[in-house]
Amino acid sequence: MRGVIMHAPGDVRVEERPDPVIEEPTDAVIRIVAACVCGSDLWPYRGVDEPQDQKMGHEYVGLVEQIGDAVETVKPGDFVVGSFVISDGTCPICSAGYQSRCVNASFIDGTVGTQAEFARIPFADGTLVATPEYPEEDLIPSLLAASDVFGTGWFAADAAEAGPGKTVAVVGDGAVGLMGVLAAKQMGAERIIVMSRHADRQALAREFGATDIVEERGSEGVVRIRELTDGLGAHSVIEAVGTQESMMQAIRATRPGGHIGYVGVSHNVELPGDRLFMGLVHLHGGPAPVRRYLPELINLVLERKVDPGKVFTKQLPLADAAEAYRLMDRREEVKVLLWP
Amino acid sequence: MRGVIMHAPGDVRVEERPDPVIEEPTDAVIRIVAACVCGSDLWPYRGVDEPQDQKMGHEYVGLVEQIGDAVETVKPGDFVVGSFVISDGTCPICSAGYQSRCVNASFIDGTVGTQAEFARIPFADGTLVATPEYPEEDLIPSLLAASDVFGTGWFAADAAEAGPGKTVAVVGDGAVGLMGVLAAKQMGAERIIVMSRHADRQALAREFGATDIVEERGSEGVVRIRELTDGLGAHSVIEAVGTQESMMQAIRATRPGGHIGYVGVSHNVELPGDRLFMGLVHLHGGPAPVRRYLPELINLVLERKVDPGKVFTKQLPLADAAEAYRLMDRREEVKVLLWP
Repeated sequence: MRGVIMHAPGDVRVEERPDPVIEEPTDAVIRIVAACVCGSDLWPYRGVDEPQDQKMGHEYVGLVEQIGDAVETVKPGDFVVGSFVISDGTCPICSAGYQSRCVNASFIDGTVGTQAEFARIPFADGTLVATPEYPEEDLIPSLLAASDVFGTGWFAADAAEAGPGKTVAVVGDGAVGLMGVLAAKQMGAERIIVMSRHADRQALAREFGATDIVEERGSEGVVRIRELTDGLGAHSVIEAVGTQESMMQAIRATRPGGHIGYVGVSHNVELPGDRLFMGLVHLHGGPAPVRRYLPELINLVLERKVDPGKVFTKQLPLADAAEAYRLMDRREEVKVLLWP
Repeated sequence: MRGVIMHAPGDVRVEERPDPVIEEPTDAVIRIVAACVCGSDLWPYRGVDEPQDQKMGHEYVGLVEQIGDAVETVKPGDFVVGSFVISDGTCPICSAGYQSRCVNASFIDGTVGTQAEFARIPFADGTLVATPEYPEEDLIPSLLAASDVFGTGWFAADAAEAGPGKTVAVVGDGAVGLMGVLAAKQMGAERIIVMSRHADRQALAREFGATDIVEERGSEGVVRIRELTDGLGAHSVIEAVGTQESMMQAIRATRPGGHIGYVGVSHNVELPGDRLFMGLVHLHGGPAPVRRYLPELINLVLERKVDPGKVFTKQLPLADAAEAYRLMDRREEVKVLLWP
């Protein structure tokens, strides 16, 4: 089969590799229906992380081809959406809803690689969720989004306790930030402020439910958010970048007692304890336990209550994966879907 | 009147200063019935913070002597317990329960100084809570504890979401940590692990409800807590020290999805973002909004359901304040009460 390999920063190729097979009784092998490029794939692409002939891709929807003897909740022919982290679904951490840190957790990225035609998914029962039937074609991008970008934005909004009467600020206008907007809107947030200086992303943010745009960055951005919130800061702040600057922006833009949901993969961040202490904020984040939310998110999509698939501003065949990376790296597209 | 002044590290004196008077219509002047020395008073005492002829003391119970024209909820003759932070009680931050970051907040420490015979308490309605009548004498230490050390331990346990079925770990066997034990016990925690290597504090911790003691520190301490929790870490961790080591211990001892309540005043702490991110923990802390909890804590004391006053292992007259600091600095006493 064909799949994407990143050999070195900027060097993305679609190459032949062996078809996956069932290795453990808890495995499923799926035919990938749609995959995509994640913002986090750009870290190795840009050389911030060091890729070494890495299988790429961790977002996916697919059709179950084969299952191991122990798999009970999905069967061949099922259309499935899966989390970007493998989880057994039964350990105490999974039971508490933190499947992304399951005691048997592993990241699909780098091991499985779903920018491909097929994938072996370990712990299929704990990782995959089947839809009742094969979905209508136009819903596939939104279901794909649920497997990471939408699920991660949803977790961020949940961790930030977005809800009725709340003002939510979103740091980061990438795909995850935009999904955070959609999630906050769906959770009933009263006001959603997005920090963005790109007209196309501002437009998409407004479409997803943003009420205010802040173009200023750093301290000026924080000042602007305070101005918009009676000098207090936002109740809820979604951080979707992962840098020192974005984390500090989030912390400083949150009112005392407020909540920060951070999902930008942390890179060289050091949080000053005294600032956190005096901020009296709640901080929660990390790799999103998407599996917890999948049943709910799939329903929202199938009932056409949300349309997270709009975050895919471009769709390409898998063969053009290198072009997909290039477009996202240059911020010419928000997020690119790949059809195998 | 007499009050404690710290002139320089280690230099604590009881000196005459003018009696406080009503300055604002929202003020109350109270006669201090009992005060005490806080662990945080030891930072300037040890020269970590720089004291400059600083009025000391922020924990207090007292009798209202005079009130300003705008004060409505306390009257002369009332016995009152107050928070260690002034709060107006009406701003949106106070209304949300975060009085310690009230828009008009100020720390009593350094400005008012309650290690004294009298104190002017600004925003009396928002800061003080009156008991129904003058309490029985033996309850006074416990009511005094509510004004900071018990209120802070309670906040830490609340922020750590201690409760039924939870394993709570407590980093720090100082007075606040011990109060965290008491709070966690009162909240119904199933198991309470205290990190301590001092026999006297271990005994007090057990008296307050600790079920396990861990003597190891640093990485070994974390390993020990993991061993006691099926390799997962505690559900809830109370951090009551404020150093880099103690914060990292708390973060590493918490299971994914677990909660850390941190109340040790942060000194030179830098939290690595990647460790926090992969930890997937909840982090909440800062100066405790004691005023939120005071009515509940006062009731618990008056109903004799808790006895936080036991944390005062020594009682001295105000005149011996220097000795009180010395005893606490040398860890010869857990906490010293001062009678003016």
